Amino acid sequence: MNKANRQWLLRRRPTGAVSPDDFEFRESVVPQAGPGDVLVRSLYFGFDPSQRMWLTDNGGYMEPVGIGQPMRTMGIGQVVESRVEGYAPGDLVEGFLSWQDYVLARADGPMPLRKLPKDAGIPLSWHLGVFGVTGLAAYFGMTDVGQVRAGDVVVVSAASGATGSVAGQIAKAMGAKKVIGIAGGADNCQWLLEQGHYDAAIDYKREDIDARLKALAPEGVNLYFDNVGGETLDTLLMNMAWFGRIVVCGAVSSGYTSTEVAGPRNYMQLCTRSLRMQGFLLFAYADRLAEGAQALGRLVQEGKLQVVEDLEVGFEKAPLLLPTLFSGKKPGKLVLKIADPE
Amino acid sequence: MNKANRQWLLRRRPTGAVSPDDFEFRESVVPQAGPGDVLVRSLYFGFDPSQRMWLTDNGGYMEPVGIGQPMRTMGIGQVVESRVEGYAPGDLVEGFLSWQDYVLARADGPMPLRKLPKDAGIPLSWHLGVFGVTGLAAYFGMTDVGQVRAGDVVVVSAASGATGSVAGQIAKAMGAKKVIGIAGGADNCQWLLEQGHYDAAIDYKREDIDARLKALAPEGVNLYFDNVGGETLDTLLMNMAWFGRIVVCGAVSSGYTSTEVAGPRNYMQLCTRSLRMQGFLLFAYADRLAEGAQALGRLVQEGKLQVVEDLEVGFEKAPLLLPTLFSGKKPGKLVLKIADPE
Repeated sequence: MNKANRQWLLRRRPTGAVSPDDFEFRESVVPQAGPGDVLVRSLYFGFDPSQRMWLTDNGGYMEPVGIGQPMRTMGIGQVVESRVEGYAPGDLVEGFLSWQDYVLARADGPMPLRKLPKDAGIPLSWHLGVFGVTGLAAYFGMTDVGQVRAGDVVVVSAASGATGSVAGQIAKAMGAKKVIGIAGGADNCQWLLEQGHYDAAIDYKREDIDARLKALAPEGVNLYFDNVGGETLDTLLMNMAWFGRIVVCGAVSSGYTSTEVAGPRNYMQLCTRSLRMQGFLLFAYADRLAEGAQALGRLVQEGKLQVVEDLEVGFEKAPLLLPTLFSGKKPGKLVLKIADPE
Repeated sequence: MNKANRQWLLRRRPTGAVSPDDFEFRESVVPQAGPGDVLVRSLYFGFDPSQRMWLTDNGGYMEPVGIGQPMRTMGIGQVVESRVEGYAPGDLVEGFLSWQDYVLARADGPMPLRKLPKDAGIPLSWHLGVFGVTGLAAYFGMTDVGQVRAGDVVVVSAASGATGSVAGQIAKAMGAKKVIGIAGGADNCQWLLEQGHYDAAIDYKREDIDARLKALAPEGVNLYFDNVGGETLDTLLMNMAWFGRIVVCGAVSSGYTSTEVAGPRNYMQLCTRSLRMQGFLLFAYADRLAEGAQALGRLVQEGKLQVVEDLEVGFEKAPLLLPTLFSGKKPGKLVLKIADPE
């Protein structure tokens, strides 16, 4: 194989916000698959705030990306060459890839490459969003961790984001009485109300979250699905109903520049209001991912789950897109298309 | 009734640590019971860190104690006069009293006065400690909230305190594999090991908690019963096992000078390790208190629960004793004896 392999390598470890300059472009040769390897051609890269965590010294919940290494990403690709039983050239797969045209992927580990159906009748990129890590995190976070139930008043932050746009709709489909989304900007709030099945939207860029919550949920919030942490989490802690539940899915307001973030100074409301606060990683549901994807598929078919994607095209854009996760963007999962399958 | 009624009134709202000077002594007349009142003669006062919270502007989970009012306390008393059905002169009762010889108590509210048996064969003051709010908090916190189970590695902070001294023993009695107590000073640690059924003790005043935990619990902590918050909570967050549970019972390291405390900056370990962190107030178990007291009584009878009390005598000492809850003290529940029953 004589093609070039474009790569975006980590040039330096960012200390504050991640910047395009933290990566450098290189053209390399296409690697060959050794024993245990699957050589995958990249088709789509998904963007997720936890990628910033992988750039810290300790990596958060995974090994940090090494300096000079291609940036790790969740992605969809097509198998070119396989030295692993069960994967054959032409197979479409989803899993941990990196920012390069050709990736030597492993089929083992806690989240091995997942084979995708060829003619599922949905856009291939949806396997990164609604049927990928973000949609599945919304599903297990809302159902298994959050135990959403009929009659709940539910609040979701980063509600127009990849996870939030799915989480709120799951809550509504499962009978929540009122689903309130917190998002940034009029366009994102409009999406929540007109497309995303949310009952109410709070624009954190121009509204007082505390005042809006007291008006929208005077009896208190039963379930808060937290994607942002920071001040918003502290505000929610002061607006929870007795025996409320807080699902800790992310803390994007911290920028994930460190694994230490501003701790919620109102956390003693856990006592005062008898609250449960619980976090999770999707790894814990590795053996239930198919179940989650099926449930999400049914919701899509029933018209209860509107899928929204923020689709960009072109390998060269990868380093430009990552920082936008922290600075506000359009609704839905941010996906970068690299190539079409063959 | 012509006796004097000694009182300790709140003179000013403390801003930092509570001090004896925040209270002033007065002698008043003994009040008379109006409709709905029970006049109680004080026998014992119990001391609890949450009393400091009642002195803040918003009181935490209760109304703040008003300036010029007698300091609120949990206590044991004897009914002198009753205008409430079910309470008769001579009855022994436990509940919310205040720092005065004679208290007009209410029999209603979420935690009404509880009638005590006259000849239970145990010291009367135990109804404030092991069979009172602190012991019951240990019981429901460890069982219902913490879901302690056989094989657990359990850590309790403020382990020689009123709640901690009971919580660790409950865990051990319920089959925990290893129960580790964090306490201050050699004497308190010695009590844990020799009397309190703890398997290991960490003296936070002279030992590195993180290093000791890594040695004592290399596989991680399954259940942390947190009475202190602050740095200790952050250290524990970095030493929890996957799917661990954190019971938030108190944050005494904050001094409760405000309802806002230093938030746990490592709280995103809730995600990284899939942890559950849950708080509670004993109010939530108001209808199960008898069940808890019975279970604790069985543990005492079986020799599995060693009761320890820090008993002082004399009404005049009340303001001196309250600050010692935050500065370190002897093992067990701090109780002040005021008078003997008639």
